[in-house]
Amino acid sequence: MARALQLARQGEGHVEPNPMVGAVVVADGQIVGEGWHQKFGGPHAEVNALAAAGPRARGATLYVTLEPCCHTGKTPPCSQAVIEAGIARVVAAVADPFPQVDGGGFYQLRNAGVTCEIGLMQQEARHLLAPYLKLVTTGRPWVIAKWAMTLDGKIATHTGSSQWITGTKARQRVHQLRGRMDAIIVGSRTARVDNPLLTARPPGVRRATRIVLGHLDPESQLANSAHDAPLIVVRPRHVDPSEYHWLTATGGELLLVDEGDHITQMGQLLDQLGERRMTNVMFEGGAVVLGALFDAHVVDEVHAYVAPKITGGSGAPSPVSGFGACDMNDSIQLEGIELEQLENDLFIHGRVKHSSGTVSTTPRP
Amino acid sequence: MARALQLARQGEGHVEPNPMVGAVVVADGQIVGEGWHQKFGGPHAEVNALAAAGPRARGATLYVTLEPCCHTGKTPPCSQAVIEAGIARVVAAVADPFPQVDGGGFYQLRNAGVTCEIGLMQQEARHLLAPYLKLVTTGRPWVIAKWAMTLDGKIATHTGSSQWITGTKARQRVHQLRGRMDAIIVGSRTARVDNPLLTARPPGVRRATRIVLGHLDPESQLANSAHDAPLIVVRPRHVDPSEYHWLTATGGELLLVDEGDHITQMGQLLDQLGERRMTNVMFEGGAVVLGALFDAHVVDEVHAYVAPKITGGSGAPSPVSGFGACDMNDSIQLEGIELEQLENDLFIHGRVKHSSGTVSTTPRP
Repeated sequence: MARALQLARQGEGHVEPNPMVGAVVVADGQIVGEGWHQKFGGPHAEVNALAAAGPRARGATLYVTLEPCCHTGKTPPCSQAVIEAGIARVVAAVADPFPQVDGGGFYQLRNAGVTCEIGLMQQEARHLLAPYLKLVTTGRPWVIAKWAMTLDGKIATHTGSSQWITGTKARQRVHQLRGRMDAIIVGSRTARVDNPLLTARPPGVRRATRIVLGHLDPESQLANSAHDAPLIVVRPRHVDPSEYHWLTATGGELLLVDEGDHITQMGQLLDQLGERRMTNVMFEGGAVVLGALFDAHVVDEVHAYVAPKITGGSGAPSPVSGFGACDMNDSIQLEGIELEQLENDLFIHGRVKHSSGTVSTTPRP
Repeated sequence: MARALQLARQGEGHVEPNPMVGAVVVADGQIVGEGWHQKFGGPHAEVNALAAAGPRARGATLYVTLEPCCHTGKTPPCSQAVIEAGIARVVAAVADPFPQVDGGGFYQLRNAGVTCEIGLMQQEARHLLAPYLKLVTTGRPWVIAKWAMTLDGKIATHTGSSQWITGTKARQRVHQLRGRMDAIIVGSRTARVDNPLLTARPPGVRRATRIVLGHLDPESQLANSAHDAPLIVVRPRHVDPSEYHWLTATGGELLLVDEGDHITQMGQLLDQLGERRMTNVMFEGGAVVLGALFDAHVVDEVHAYVAPKITGGSGAPSPVSGFGACDMNDSIQLEGIELEQLENDLFIHGRVKHSSGTVSTTPRP
């Protein structure tokens, strides 16, 4: 199963909104076939592993990270392929909550006399599949909050100077991660002050939709590149759409949300992105947007880049504003912290404890 | 020399304001004696190493991290002991800028026919001896700025709640470091809000003087423990000393500085602490004090403890206020960053690039 999880991870960025899945066929204690889901719309992991095993699959055990599907989507159901290959036993890490599967895969397999076991390395598989499981069970994408700051917690000087906080290698890492996102989201102030492109350079396996929360200047780099990379501007319903003719004319899209506070609007936005089957979205600031996200308790993962420098200044902004916690003990806790040293900078990332993703993916009864 | 540096470090906290020194006697490619300066006022490293070597020191090479002394202080001069032991060659990492030595050790040795070489592992030795070298050459102690913050750069919530940011292990590490400091310094707001003791618990090898910059409440924990651990309150000259009778009555001390801005006062304070032969002092906040320190460019080393939690809040303070840098490129750069994971917290420490300590200890012509 460890090998199957390793195989599954190779699909990262290529398969979404499908899940990353890996599969290994074992006969007489030997691996006789391996496969993973390589590409959205392409054959599933089980089919690839069974093809590799050929006739050796008969009577063998199939280790697979997710319950085999039992419905015809872009490809025929895997449960039938497993049965036809003569697999005697299926060991799966987790059940698939996808409405058209949701236990149906195991049901079909057991009906055909295949032994099914569920739960081996479940925690590791849930960790890997967290964005997929969140999208399927809550209808919202996995939310990453990202910022770069100095060691004294500043994202700019008191005059607003912010380029550059981190070095080349840290910025390359950001571009690499952008390349597997479905959306990169910033506030209107960041769009105005930094005038960013928000594309992955060099391009990654996915091309993220750039999303601006609030007004966007038609002369900005984002607006000028709308022909080349998807662009969405999010505005409240009362805005006159004719103001954004330039946007739709250049291939961009105006997305309207209800009036209301930041927290409500943030929820609506995530619902809409989930409807578009976006699996991973990254918010790259500024402080007001990240503050609203944390106040709304909708962040799943934090990416903090920390530069070894001290900026100082009582007027210099820190990465997360909003209302914030009242008591230090009510702060949002992170877990599974990992560290990367990127030249002189530190990349600290971890997941929010009991995030909506973790909670929503507890096994069903 | 690497071994001598290793030996030298064992004196850390015990020998100040003397330098940490290690020495190794080598005859025919074999180590025949080792020693280090173990305790302020006790025998020097060379004497200990020569004693260990005994008659095998005759004709041997002495590796020592610092130029042997040539004056009678608390102990007789080492240069004479080296000559009398019959050492043929002395290899030292750095010269001693201490006014009563300052090349005199090498002069006496060479006059007696001992070969002297200087500069082996000089960089490592200067790193180890930086606080001593700074005190001797500038008259000021080595300044450590310390804080604990959340991953979004907050030292308290917007309501002022700050206990606890980090976990037990990180706080233990702070106490361990306090145990080798000459002074622990905080601002009056921190003294009032946190009401700390500022002692090392359990006690370390040194007992730091607790120093409060500004008014201190006679009912505070600091005031109430003035009988047990040294306490200084720093106030401008215009303050009526009779207000602080309670302080002197309990064994504490009132230290008066000139009127003026924070930066000038900070310089005066460091001069006064240097006159008291304090080698290492740690400023533990709050943001205003640390802001003044960085604005005055007098920090040598930074100790940041980072807890994996997000507090948020536009009104939540960050660790360093003051005026700060205007351009991000003018931020104070750190080097030699080291990381320690303390349970879930991170301890990030490094030295200020081209700090006064580093600059002042460049070799003399």
